[in-house]
Formats: sequence, structure tokens, C-alpha cells
Amino acid sequence: MSHELGAVVDLGSNSVRLVIYRLGSQGTQQEIDNLKQTVRLSSHLGDDGRIAEAGIKAALRVLEQFCQLCRAYGVTHITGIATQAVRMAVNREEVLKRIYEATGIPFRVVSGEEEARYGYLAVVNSLALEEGVTVDIGGGSTEITVFRDRRLVRADSIPYGAVSLTREFLRSDLPSMKDMKNLDRVIQRELDRRPWLTGLGFPVIGMGGTARSLARIHQRRRHYPLLILHGYEMWPTEVTAILDMVRSMPIVKRRNITGLSADRADIITAGLAILDQILKRVGTSRFVISNKGLRDGVLMEHILHIRGQELLPDTLMYSIENIHDQFGLNRNHAFHVWKLADRLFTAMVNHGLVEASEEHRRWLQVAALLHDIGRAISIYNTSKHTFYLLLQIPLFGISHRDRVMAAAIAAFKSTKQIQTYLSMYQEFFDEEDIPTITQLGVILRLVRAFDRTETGVVTGLDLQPDGRAWKLIVKARQPLGIELDLALEWTKKCRKVFQREIRLEVDDLDHASRL
Amino acid sequence: MSHELGAVVDLGSNSVRLVIYRLGSQGTQQEIDNLKQTVRLSSHLGDDGRIAEAGIKAALRVLEQFCQLCRAYGVTHITGIATQAVRMAVNREEVLKRIYEATGIPFRVVSGEEEARYGYLAVVNSLALEEGVTVDIGGGSTEITVFRDRRLVRADSIPYGAVSLTREFLRSDLPSMKDMKNLDRVIQRELDRRPWLTGLGFPVIGMGGTARSLARIHQRRRHYPLLILHGYEMWPTEVTAILDMVRSMPIVKRRNITGLSADRADIITAGLAILDQILKRVGTSRFVISNKGLRDGVLMEHILHIRGQELLPDTLMYSIENIHDQFGLNRNHAFHVWKLADRLFTAMVNHGLVEASEEHRRWLQVAALLHDIGRAISIYNTSKHTFYLLLQIPLFGISHRDRVMAAAIAAFKSTKQIQTYLSMYQEFFDEEDIPTITQLGVILRLVRAFDRTETGVVTGLDLQPDGRAWKLIVKARQPLGIELDLALEWTKKCRKVFQREIRLEVDDLDHASRL
Repeated sequence: MSHELGAVVDLGSNSVRLVIYRLGSQGTQQEIDNLKQTVRLSSHLGDDGRIAEAGIKAALRVLEQFCQLCRAYGVTHITGIATQAVRMAVNREEVLKRIYEATGIPFRVVSGEEEARYGYLAVVNSLALEEGVTVDIGGGSTEITVFRDRRLVRADSIPYGAVSLTREFLRSDLPSMKDMKNLDRVIQRELDRRPWLTGLGFPVIGMGGTARSLARIHQRRRHYPLLILHGYEMWPTEVTAILDMVRSMPIVKRRNITGLSADRADIITAGLAILDQILKRVGTSRFVISNKGLRDGVLMEHILHIRGQELLPDTLMYSIENIHDQFGLNRNHAFHVWKLADRLFTAMVNHGLVEASEEHRRWLQVAALLHDIGRAISIYNTSKHTFYLLLQIPLFGISHRDRVMAAAIAAFKSTKQIQTYLSMYQEFFDEEDIPTITQLGVILRLVRAFDRTETGVVTGLDLQPDGRAWKLIVKARQPLGIELDLALEWTKKCRKVFQREIRLEVDDLDHASRL
Repeated sequence: MSHELGAVVDLGSNSVRLVIYRLGSQGTQQEIDNLKQTVRLSSHLGDDGRIAEAGIKAALRVLEQFCQLCRAYGVTHITGIATQAVRMAVNREEVLKRIYEATGIPFRVVSGEEEARYGYLAVVNSLALEEGVTVDIGGGSTEITVFRDRRLVRADSIPYGAVSLTREFLRSDLPSMKDMKNLDRVIQRELDRRPWLTGLGFPVIGMGGTARSLARIHQRRRHYPLLILHGYEMWPTEVTAILDMVRSMPIVKRRNITGLSADRADIITAGLAILDQILKRVGTSRFVISNKGLRDGVLMEHILHIRGQELLPDTLMYSIENIHDQFGLNRNHAFHVWKLADRLFTAMVNHGLVEASEEHRRWLQVAALLHDIGRAISIYNTSKHTFYLLLQIPLFGISHRDRVMAAAIAAFKSTKQIQTYLSMYQEFFDEEDIPTITQLGVILRLVRAFDRTETGVVTGLDLQPDGRAWKLIVKARQPLGIELDLALEWTKKCRKVFQREIRLEVDDLDHASRL
């Protein structure tokens, strides 16, 4: 598959960000570099409505650096977008012209609604949510969308963000009650004009630096064992609690909050105040972090165009496609193993050997499609590497619990071994999940044996009662060798795991043999 | 770089093994699959000196499976070698003919001396040892070599191995003192004929299944935190202790020893008895495990031929070359970062800012050459991935302690963070190493900043006293941008780490600017 490198540069009101990605001809993608510089463009907006010369120079300096890096990588296409600070500036045209002269990139100023829609695109194509409210708190504006059945219903932009509100209301180190009330009143007024938000009850998805910092603070405080922000969930009351904490701290203390970067310590209070108000207004019980935002939405629009799709039909499968591509995995083998695992799982469900559960089937699917990933590190200790990687790679459209369970099934060698691996991740499962992991782990090991040569030689599986045991009928294109030797090792474990013996019967067209 | 796939199949007296590797045109290699089946060919050697029909059939069955897997991979070249069991068999020619008819592979019977030499080749090209005694305990024979200045001095083969000695002397479950004495006497007699071993005092390097099992047992018992056998060291007395343990256990108990595979439980006593005698005879204080053996020696012969070398001049650099190739790392960037790190380190040594230590320089070198490896997993949490990978990848020619230190330096972000990463690896360092890791970590972070664009824009570094501070003169091919912004973040840390301020002065040919 051929690849090209592209980049998105986002000239925001608080920071300038660059993401460089590799784009496959089939519309797969991997992020290969990511850089941020805090320029605070909205602080340079004067009373005359112009971005001051110092602001333009600071922005140009960073943009030139980013272009230099893009050239060094051999990036062939750069998309430049500018948001609220440039949107508001009366000298907008001059700013864009000077950027173009310095970098050769035609920056596009996106409207508030467009910006909101990009956030929506990023979210619905990376989180498995049918409906929701996206909130992207930027430096100079806050974008909100509502979606139902994954379709955009509303897209709107509030012309206040973490930097501009801080500048207007929270100039003192420790804001007074009155400062906070004034700030809240402005937000309330904006939300009053958007009655469609009130009481909607949908999950709220938070994007942007404020939301990421919030999640990082929360994860560090509770020693969350995964280093994953995307899809992390918090109670709305926990957001309020962290807002109360930061607003009562002087900035020198705020700078030391674990998870909060020093260059955000000044504007975090305003950012959280906006989010807190919106959560209350929507009346949701569910707050979800998205690590994907504006830049990812811009990229996603391009990818959807390549793929001829309006939305990704399946975010999980798309992320698995990207992972197959990144790690050079054998897709045919992966999908063949999943086909066999699904057959065996379904047959076992039909015969009452395992529980009928869509959740379990999804775990098995992810585990089957990615079971070989550890080999990208080494063919020794592969199970350990598979477990490690499944907790680290960009896997979208499943919960953090699903991810841990899939990792355990993919890495399964024995119940004892997998309990050791899982010891750091107790909060994601209870004791009842261990037999499930064992059953699904043994199913996966068994079907992996059938495709040890990665040639799809085993074409089908069927399970039939055979006296007090079960007979697993293995359909093969040609006589089996190593596949059977390895499969027999795992059928031996079945007696203990499924309380019944499982015997193999091979139908290899040439001759049927019973083992 | 173009690649092809090759394989080595080793028809041994205890097991048949297959290794499939990818070979780069420059003689780099990665092992991509590895399979073993226990056939016990030497058990099929009858009193008439022939390998019985059942043994031939069992071997053919496994070899056909291996060929099938090689075909599935698209392996273009298979090297087949046979050792002691076939060497001894009076029907050797018939066995080879039948293998050739069934698989099309012309298996070569290697002599005991050749087999020993392959073990030596594997060891001197993967461990940093100038002199040593290699001992490869097989099923039917034991190969011994002596090397000095990395040159082969002796190569010999004792016609007894773990399977044949077990069959002859340890037929009962719990061997009597008399059984053990008879066994020891045979080994003693063989060693008496090789007086050149006695009192040599060189490190002894153990290869083969017995040595690997021994190391695994030892590592599990002491909860060794690394999953690496190659280069693991034990005291000779610890070998004796484990021999004493296994020989006093009935087989049902031996099968449950953690680290020992069930299909080796019967022959481990005989294998360890040979090793123990040799260690005592050599009178060494140092026993080292090699995970590389016969098959790797056969492959190494081919690689040395491609590279036009008699021996790899530097085993560490060769393994780093293989890793660069496997993970698709930017070699020019890696070597450029190392060049800059070496300049800065040397300058700091000359000015007394850091300790002059060849050990520290080596850690910095490995860290610099592999600092980017975590990005192969993800550009998020890269430091964590770098640390993980540096403890897992096949890195040869350095000790396990060196590896942990290099991993810490490559992954360094802050002293606190690296102490967390190292908490599981306390046995490899003491508190005095932490400031060293911090100093070398900051040096690496600083020079990485100078090559952030991976274009080699910074061509040189020099350090000069500047009042009470130091001036770091940065020579560059063109004006620097992002490199300086990132470098300034790290020079800020220098005051704390080196007790002196470090100021940057850029000499970019166009204009010299002081920051």
C-alpha cells in the first residue's frame, strides 16, 4: 500500500499545533508527529480589534518552524486553519497574507459552525456514541454540537474561551466570588440563547486542552493504570470538584498540580467554569474525554472523501485497519483467525458451552484481529508484548474495560499467567470475568493453531455432541500437520475449561481422519 | 534495503528446530519465527546402531511440517543440518536420502568439531567476551570450544548428551548414588582426555536446552525482573545447587519446577551433571548463558560471508544495526544524535562537569542510537515505550545492567519519572547511579532538541567557560528555530543538574547570535 505524508496546522487562540500523519491509499492513517507551541494569539487582540504586530511575529515564527519540520519530513500537503482569534481580528486579511508570504500556506479561517462540525466529525468517528453533545473549549471560543444517530443536529460557537474569559474576568491571582459570578453570568447568558441544550441529557464529550488537562488531573489523583485519555469517563460532579479545587488555589500552587502543564495553570479555571456550566445545562450523567479534536476532524473529512463515506461505518474496525497497517500485520491471517474464532464461539454458544454475550464476542473479535501484534516487538515473550501493545495503541470505539479484556484474551497462555498480567488493572474486571477470559483465551489459542501457517488451510469448524464429549469437525483444504499438533495441546485444556472433552475430527477432502 | 527470508533446520538428537529469519542485503537479520518439536531421535538408535523406522518417520513428519511453514512464509533458502544421532547412525545415508526425497532439502551431517565451531561463532558474535569456554549440551553429544582474543583455539565434541546419558545411567525415577557416580565417571573419563580444559579459569558459556532451562529456573526462583536469558550470569555453585535439587526429586515433582518445561524434566539431571563437571574442571568463577547456539552459528557464518568479515568487529553495533532495520528507525538521525551527545559528553568530561567513565559513555551511546525506538509504538507516551522496548529487544554485547541504564537514559524526562520506571529494577543500580542517569539523560535531551528536524542542521558543539556559567557554542548549517526553543527548555535544567548555568551561543554561518 502506498503512503504519503500530510500535515494539519491549527492556528488557535491559545496555541499553534501541528500534526503530521501518514496517509495510506485506502484512507488509513497514522499520526507520526505532533507539536504544540503556546503563542496566546488572543492575548494580542487589542482594543482596536487588531492582532498586534508582536502577536503576528510570534505566530509567524512558530509557523515557519512547523513548515521547516514539514519540509524535513517530506510532507506533501499542509492544511492550515485559523480559528477565533483570527476570525475576530479586523486585520484578518493582513495576517493571512503575511502568513502566506512567509510560509506559502494558504490558511483558511473556519467559521465557528465549521469548527464545531470538525469537532463532531472527530468524535463520531473515534468514539462509539450514537448521540451526544460535543464541547470544544478553545482559547477564544467554545464550539458546541449536538448529534443524534451519529448525525449532526446542531453546530454552534460561543465567542468565549479559556484565554479570553481569563483576560476579561480572572485577572487577579485568586478570583473573588464576584469575579466568578461575573464570569458565570456571561456563560449563562450565552447558554440561555441556546435553549436546545437544556435538559438534553445526552453524554457530553469534552475536547481541547482544558478537557485533556482535566482528565489528566483526575487520572493522576486516582492512580488510573492506563495512559489513555481518549474515551476516559468522569462524573460531572468530579468536574465541579476539580473546578472548586483550582479556583481556590493561587497560581504558584496550581502550577504544581500533577497532570496540569505549567503553561495552562493560569487559564484552567475559566476553561473548567465553561465546561461545568455546560454539563449542568445539558443535565448529563456522563462526561467523556475526546483526545481527538479540530485537527483530527479536518483530517477525517479528507479521509472520508478518499473512502467515499459520509461517516466511518465502524470506528473500531477503522482503528484496527490503521493498526494492521502501522505494524505491518498480516490482515488475511488476522481476519481468518477471527472467522474461525467466531464460528467456534457461536457453535459453543449454541450448545450452551459458553455464555451468549455480545460483549464477550466483541472482546474475542478485537483479540483475534490483533493477536499477532506482539510479534512486531519480538518473537520471544510475544504474549507479554501483545498485552503491552493492546493497552497502548490507538484503538477506538471500545471502552477502556473492553480494551483490557481484549488484551487479556489476546495474550492468554494460562489462567495463572493472565491473572499476573491483570494484577495492575483490577478496577476493570471482577473475579467472574476470569473464567470468561480463560474460555475465550483457549478458543483463540485453538483457532490460532489451525492457522499457524497463515495460509487459511482450515476453512471451517463445527461442533457436535459425541457421547459425553464434543467432536470438533475441522474442514481443511489439505491434510493438516503442524496445525493439529498445536491444536491438540489446546484441546487437552478444554476438558478443564469447558468441563467436557473435545475431540478433533479432520475433514481434509482427501480422507477423513479421527484423532 | 532489500530483504529475503531464509531458514535453518537443525535435526538434533533431542529436538528438531526451525528458525526463520529475514536477511537484509547488508547482512542484517531478524528472527521472525522459531519452532521446536521434541522427537528424541537418539532414543530411536538401536543396539544395531541404526535409527529405527519409527524414529525416521517421526523426524520426517516434523521436517515436512517445517517445510510447509517455510513454503507458507516464502522462504527462499533452507539450510538443513543433522548432528550426533544421525552422525552415529549406521543407516545415516538412508536417513538423509529419505529426508531429501520427502522435503527436497539436502541435509548436511556436521562433525562434532564443526558443531562446536558453530556454537563458538554464535557466542563470540553475540556476547562481549574476549576469552571463554563454550559448552553446548545436546541430546546426544556435548560440544566444547576454547577461544582466546575471540579466536577459536580448540573445538571438540564429547559423544554424550542429556538424552543418551539419561538412557544409559538414569533409567530409574530417583537415581541412586551409584547411578550418579557411574554417570559422573563417564564424564570424568571424557574430560580427562581433554587436559587443556583443566584449570583454564575462562568464563564458561552454556548453550542448548539444558543451559536455557537452568537459567529460567534460576531466574524464576529469584524473581529476576528481566525476561532475557542471553548474557545472564550465574555462580558455578548455583549450578551445583540446582543439580542437587533436581536429582533428589521424583519426575512428577520435577515437572512442576517453574521454568522447566515438562518435556525436559526427565533429562535435566544428566544435562546439568555434564555442565557441573565441566564448570569444576575449568575452575571458573563465571558462568554465562547464551541463548544463541548452533542454528545461530550456521546463520552467522552466512552473514559473515555476506559482510566479508571473519568476525563481527562489534557485536553491540551489529545488534543496533539489526534493531534500526527491524523498527525502521532513521539511522542518520540516530548516529547524528550520538555524534552530538559524544561531543557534549567529552567536552563536559574535559571541563570536569561529568565523570570520565567509559561505562557511562557506552550507556549514552546505546541510549542515543536507540532513543527514538518508542515512536515505533506511538508518538504518545514515547518515553514509556522506549523504556519498555530497550528491555525487550535483542541487544547484544552489553550486560543486563548496561541495558537497564541505557534504557533509563533514553527514556529520561525527569529524575522523579525515571525513578518510578526503575523501581522494579533496583538490583541493577544503586542510589549513586541516579545522578549519572540524570546528567546523561539531560545531555541526550539537549542534543535531541538540536536534531528535532532530523536533518543534521547542527553540525558541532563546543563548551567554554563564560564567567561563572558555561557557554555552549552551537554550530549550525542554517539559522535554528524549533531546535533552539526545545534546547532552551533543557538548558534551564542544567543549572540544577550541573550546578552551573549553560548559555547557548549559535554560530549559524550567516550571523552569530547569543541567546
